[in-house]
This record gives sequence, structure tokens and C-alpha cells, in this order.
Amino acid sequence: MKRAAIVVALLFAACAAASSVDERAAIRQVLDQQVAGWNRGDLEAYMQGYWNSPDLTFFSGANVTHGWQPTLDRYRKKYQGEGKEMGTLTFSDVTIDLVAPDTAFVRGAWNLAMKQGDPPHGLFTLLMKKTDQGWRIVHDHSS
Amino acid sequence: MKRAAIVVALLFAACAAASSVDERAAIRQVLDQQVAGWNRGDLEAYMQGYWNSPDLTFFSGANVTHGWQPTLDRYRKKYQGEGKEMGTLTFSDVTIDLVAPDTAFVRGAWNLAMKQGDPPHGLFTLLMKKTDQGWRIVHDHSS
Repeated sequence: MKRAAIVVALLFAACAAASSVDERAAIRQVLDQQVAGWNRGDLEAYMQGYWNSPDLTFFSGANVTHGWQPTLDRYRKKYQGEGKEMGTLTFSDVTIDLVAPDTAFVRGAWNLAMKQGDPPHGLFTLLMKKTDQGWRIVHDHSS
Repeated sequence: MKRAAIVVALLFAACAAASSVDERAAIRQVLDQQVAGWNRGDLEAYMQGYWNSPDLTFFSGANVTHGWQPTLDRYRKKYQGEGKEMGTLTFSDVTIDLVAPDTAFVRGAWNLAMKQGDPPHGLFTLLMKKTDQGWRIVHDHSS
């Protein structure tokens, strides 16, 4: 019985570890799809990574944007206005902490290579939730 | 038996809700103590709110600071150098989400009233963990 209990516990731990690896891969895929969307100029595809809710929060500088649509509008204004370019986005130093089975805390750096000039770059802190549609960013703090 | 089970479930839910209120109050107290420390010019007291670990991360602009001591050094350089003042700190619009029993996700705005000039102000996103010493900030993204 004792040995059986140990085997069950080990299997349980192995399953939990495997599931954590799966969740991290799923999160990474959401971020990769955002980058791919951005780099073909498809802001709607980029925005798929965000929770489609009025409760989404986006912090940038001292400005708070509430909601999915206003966040898309902000990106459109900033990167698709006249004479603007979206550039080529890369994420680096991405760390994913699963703080609960349905909650992840994600940190990393972003860089935007432009046709000319120094690339805008900075950092992001994300809270992601596992929704019925998959992992989605519910809060983004970018600087 | 069925009624007993319902009573037990309700008690359990009530306890969980009460404990969540307690944890929020404990987190709020840590933040309030930081503000009080800052406003008497005591950076060490302010820094008590941070996890005293080399794994603390502090994001500001495009800069990453790793560790408690370098974070304190950064604050000293920025607010206690020659001709610098610490000002009067306030936090507002603070929201505390307990994402796990030992993990909280905290958002808010900061404002620093100075003797003269426009007050520096911005936003923060914190990840806090319940440690043996109480709730501590393990990641701070400020802008």
C-alpha cells in the first residue's frame, strides 16, 4: 500500500509537471501568434491575444486604457496613423510563471525594428487567464 | 446529511471569503507602510515592502533591476542624490486580486507631490507573494 501511494503521488506530480509544460507552451504560442500577426501588419490578429472584454486593462506610461476595443483603437492610432509604421516586433527574455492552474504571470522585453532610427523597445508585465478561448492577456503593463 | 453538507459548504465559503478580506487588508497595510516610510524619508522602511531576495525584479521604462539591494540603490540614486527630494507619495486606484492563496496581483497609480513643479506620477503593476515575513512585492513594474 505504501509503495502504491508513492507511485500514485509520483504519477500525480509527473502529470502536474507535464500539464504545466503544456500550459507554458500554450501561452508561448499565444504570444508568438501576436508577434506573427503584428509583423504582417494585422492588428486584429495581434489583438487576439487579449481578453475580449471591457475589463481588459492596458497600462502604458501614466495612461490606463480599459477594454479590448479601446486598446485596439490605441494601437491603430499609434502604429497605423498617417506616416506611421508598425515595424518588426520581437519579444525576448520571456518568463512565464503559472501562479495558479488558470493564471499566469508573464514578463519580457519587446523591441520594434523600424525602417530607420533607433528601435523603440521596452518591457512588459502581463497577467494572463485561461479562458474558454484559450490563454488571454487580461492586464498588460508596457513601458 | 444533505443539510449538514450545505452548512459545511457555506461555512467553508464564508471562511474563504473572510480570509480573502484579511489577506487584502494585510496587503494594503504593507503598501500603506511603504507610503508612510517614504513620506518620512525612510527608504529602508519603504523597501520593507519588497522581497529581500536577489530574485526581486523591478521594471521601469526599458530598465530591469534585479535584487533587493540594487533596487534600494536605484531609489537612493534617484531620490536621495544631491539636490533631489523624495516628495510626498500617494497611491490611488489600488486594486488587489488574490490569484492564489499566497499570490496577489496589485495595480494602482502613484503620485509624488514635490515642493515645486508638476508632480511625477504614473502606474504600477505588482506581483506579491505571502512569505514567512508577510506579503512582499516580488515584481514591480512602474511607469
